[in-house]
Amino acid sequence: MQGIEEQPLVERHELRPAAEIGVGIVGYGTVGRAAAEILTNNAEEIRRRTDGVSIRVTRLCRRSPGVEETGVNGIKISSDWKDVVSAKDVDIVIEAMGGTGVAHDVVRSSILSGKAVVTANKALLAQFGEEIFSLADRAGVPVGIEASVGGGVPVIRVISEALAADRILAVYGIVNGTANFILTQMESHGVEFSEALQQAQTIGYAEADPGLDIDGLDARDKISILARLAFNSGVPPAHIPVTGIRSIKATDFHYAYRLDSTIRLVAAAERYGNNITISVRPWLVRRDSMLAKVDGANNAIFLVGESVGTQMLYGRGAGGGATGAAVLSDVVQIARHLGRDLVMPSGLSGFHQPEKLHLADHTRPVPWYLRLTIGDRPGILARIAEAIAREGINIDSVLQEPHMAKENLSFVVTLEPVPANVVERAARAINQFDFMLEPILVLPMISQAGGSHS
Amino acid sequence: MQGIEEQPLVERHELRPAAEIGVGIVGYGTVGRAAAEILTNNAEEIRRRTDGVSIRVTRLCRRSPGVEETGVNGIKISSDWKDVVSAKDVDIVIEAMGGTGVAHDVVRSSILSGKAVVTANKALLAQFGEEIFSLADRAGVPVGIEASVGGGVPVIRVISEALAADRILAVYGIVNGTANFILTQMESHGVEFSEALQQAQTIGYAEADPGLDIDGLDARDKISILARLAFNSGVPPAHIPVTGIRSIKATDFHYAYRLDSTIRLVAAAERYGNNITISVRPWLVRRDSMLAKVDGANNAIFLVGESVGTQMLYGRGAGGGATGAAVLSDVVQIARHLGRDLVMPSGLSGFHQPEKLHLADHTRPVPWYLRLTIGDRPGILARIAEAIAREGINIDSVLQEPHMAKENLSFVVTLEPVPANVVERAARAINQFDFMLEPILVLPMISQAGGSHS
Repeated sequence: MQGIEEQPLVERHELRPAAEIGVGIVGYGTVGRAAAEILTNNAEEIRRRTDGVSIRVTRLCRRSPGVEETGVNGIKISSDWKDVVSAKDVDIVIEAMGGTGVAHDVVRSSILSGKAVVTANKALLAQFGEEIFSLADRAGVPVGIEASVGGGVPVIRVISEALAADRILAVYGIVNGTANFILTQMESHGVEFSEALQQAQTIGYAEADPGLDIDGLDARDKISILARLAFNSGVPPAHIPVTGIRSIKATDFHYAYRLDSTIRLVAAAERYGNNITISVRPWLVRRDSMLAKVDGANNAIFLVGESVGTQMLYGRGAGGGATGAAVLSDVVQIARHLGRDLVMPSGLSGFHQPEKLHLADHTRPVPWYLRLTIGDRPGILARIAEAIAREGINIDSVLQEPHMAKENLSFVVTLEPVPANVVERAARAINQFDFMLEPILVLPMISQAGGSHS
Repeated sequence: MQGIEEQPLVERHELRPAAEIGVGIVGYGTVGRAAAEILTNNAEEIRRRTDGVSIRVTRLCRRSPGVEETGVNGIKISSDWKDVVSAKDVDIVIEAMGGTGVAHDVVRSSILSGKAVVTANKALLAQFGEEIFSLADRAGVPVGIEASVGGGVPVIRVISEALAADRILAVYGIVNGTANFILTQMESHGVEFSEALQQAQTIGYAEADPGLDIDGLDARDKISILARLAFNSGVPPAHIPVTGIRSIKATDFHYAYRLDSTIRLVAAAERYGNNITISVRPWLVRRDSMLAKVDGANNAIFLVGESVGTQMLYGRGAGGGATGAAVLSDVVQIARHLGRDLVMPSGLSGFHQPEKLHLADHTRPVPWYLRLTIGDRPGILARIAEAIAREGINIDSVLQEPHMAKENLSFVVTLEPVPANVVERAARAINQFDFMLEPILVLPMISQAGGSHS
């Protein structure tokens, strides 16, 4: 190393002494409280990880303070969010109230006041993400959104940092723990949807109004955010086709079992050139796939990169601890910068300058599972087979559970690979038949955990 | 929002116009070349992700340039690494040559010249990590090490950023793709170790001298790095107990199958207060666990956080594309800062100020799998059972494959949970018996994918 080691060490960056960073929390419910508690309990570890910057909760707000008057650090809980946003001892505002009303005001107002913002609010980001990031760009404040998708599963960071140099081909997975809990209850206990939903409500996984979870709307917001970051695209949530899990029956799990498969609610986005396909719907997945192994309220997100291949991230998708820790991962990253008066570059380019990508109306060909519930009489299979043949689709197999009542009989037809729009035309024709007692159930059959790209 | 929205937007951070960042690559083999090619092919996408900062390969070096005279961008390949490190148009040096000799000089010299460094070199980091980070701290240059563990699996980033606020309890998993390929070949084709190793060598997964992979030394360097980041601890690789996979036989997979299990080489570190346990050894894992699903040359790393629970990261652990993309994830993150003349805080505190943790000589109790190969004669089981009972260990089951030759007979004893040091005492006693034809094989039996904490 002669000739180089002799050089004097270049002392380029004299860091300022670390300042203390104050955190204000708006929304002191499950997530807000967990974040406050973790931040307080792990203060020593965190200070080591920030290389000396202390982070302290200084303000708390809850819309209905109730009986409790103080939170962590003996802080008085305010009922007015403006007390938090305008406080001089708040550098970072955690928005943990949810919804797109007051939360929107809190985030805008925090940015306008020059505060960094960390939010777990997927609905807000899916709807107002571009506006929020454009405002934050102008104000030069960082916005952290790790907890908005996947709870404790760090998918935002992995897409925007770990895969920053790769071309991402697909992102898909299980992003709603409540729906996954319900499906795995149906799978392992053979119960019907309504019973599994009730169990989820009893445990506290599902709200009294469970629509956001079981109708796929929560998953839709999440895949909208993931597609933005993965493909730099701006697909509004309202343009994403969604099918929930209300129409899945216990019998579907019996048929799935015979096909060495089970059923999972999957949010998926894939890119082909300037086209993207994006959807939320139940999939029939092989029992030996990684997707099938995701049980209970867990999340699993697959990322397919041209260079890195298929990656999977797995973990708790919800709950105060997991989501609180994810919120704090952003708080720590921001504090590492703010505490030394360093500027933090944003890696979330999908929200800053989205491209206009074309939302494809067709998908790659996959095999399909059709479940039909009929009043049995002669000639039905012939008419169904004819409707399928008319679209040029080949039938792969016909399955029927034994000992079914004739008056309410379910059977399954599996199809060879065709694009979604082709099978949907056949499904519409079949739904016209008078012997159909309920709409046909149409599930894509995905054989590989890695999806089409692996 | 009245009273707050009226404030003028605070334009705090006027970013400098983005400069171009030059990258020099020392070591133009599989990883270096892949990094150069991805960087060149994806230049447009990357520029969007860096918010305008261009990254360009400007210098290449290979020790033996061979017939090839130029690399990407028509750059002449130098055989002298000092040409790269001292070049004015190099801001970031990628060290992709491996080893702890010249690579050490390259990294030190780059830092001393004020260049940022990105390295995939686990042996170098495991051995000289503290020195390198201490030098980088003083010089104020960032050092990126994402590709050093897990190839394309972004475990460094997840531990140091996503889990920065959580208390990490355990990190463990499959971190050597070659060893995992060999074990899954043995599992699925029933072949002996030597044949599976030959297959790995034929495909190019294993070197002619495969010791680093199959004796667990590569995994040892990796778990040493992970334990540093997870526990802020400085356990030198030489202090980590290692058992490789050479003594696993086809018959062990038969017995494992009867126990609904399979065998995986697992690197693991757990923290209890100020004690840590750390090891690399083959485990008997349940076939329905996530660990068992990891096949071929893939990696899977589990992180157990007090708040986030158990997470798993899964993907390609090696190969030019995956490792190259991981190297570039660091390059992009550094360029986001350097390109705007921003200072980048380091999140890798475990290398900066390691704590002195106590390396525990005992582990939590787990059940054990013992495989004995003996010359059969009367009374053997009694003597083995006695040796086991002497340590206060209960036998759970005794298994013997039918139709085995008497003169070289294998059988398995499974034990109820005891700590590692207890079973090792019993194993040492058993190894003294003259009827033992080869040393006893001792594997911990892990029933849950989430380990002891889930």
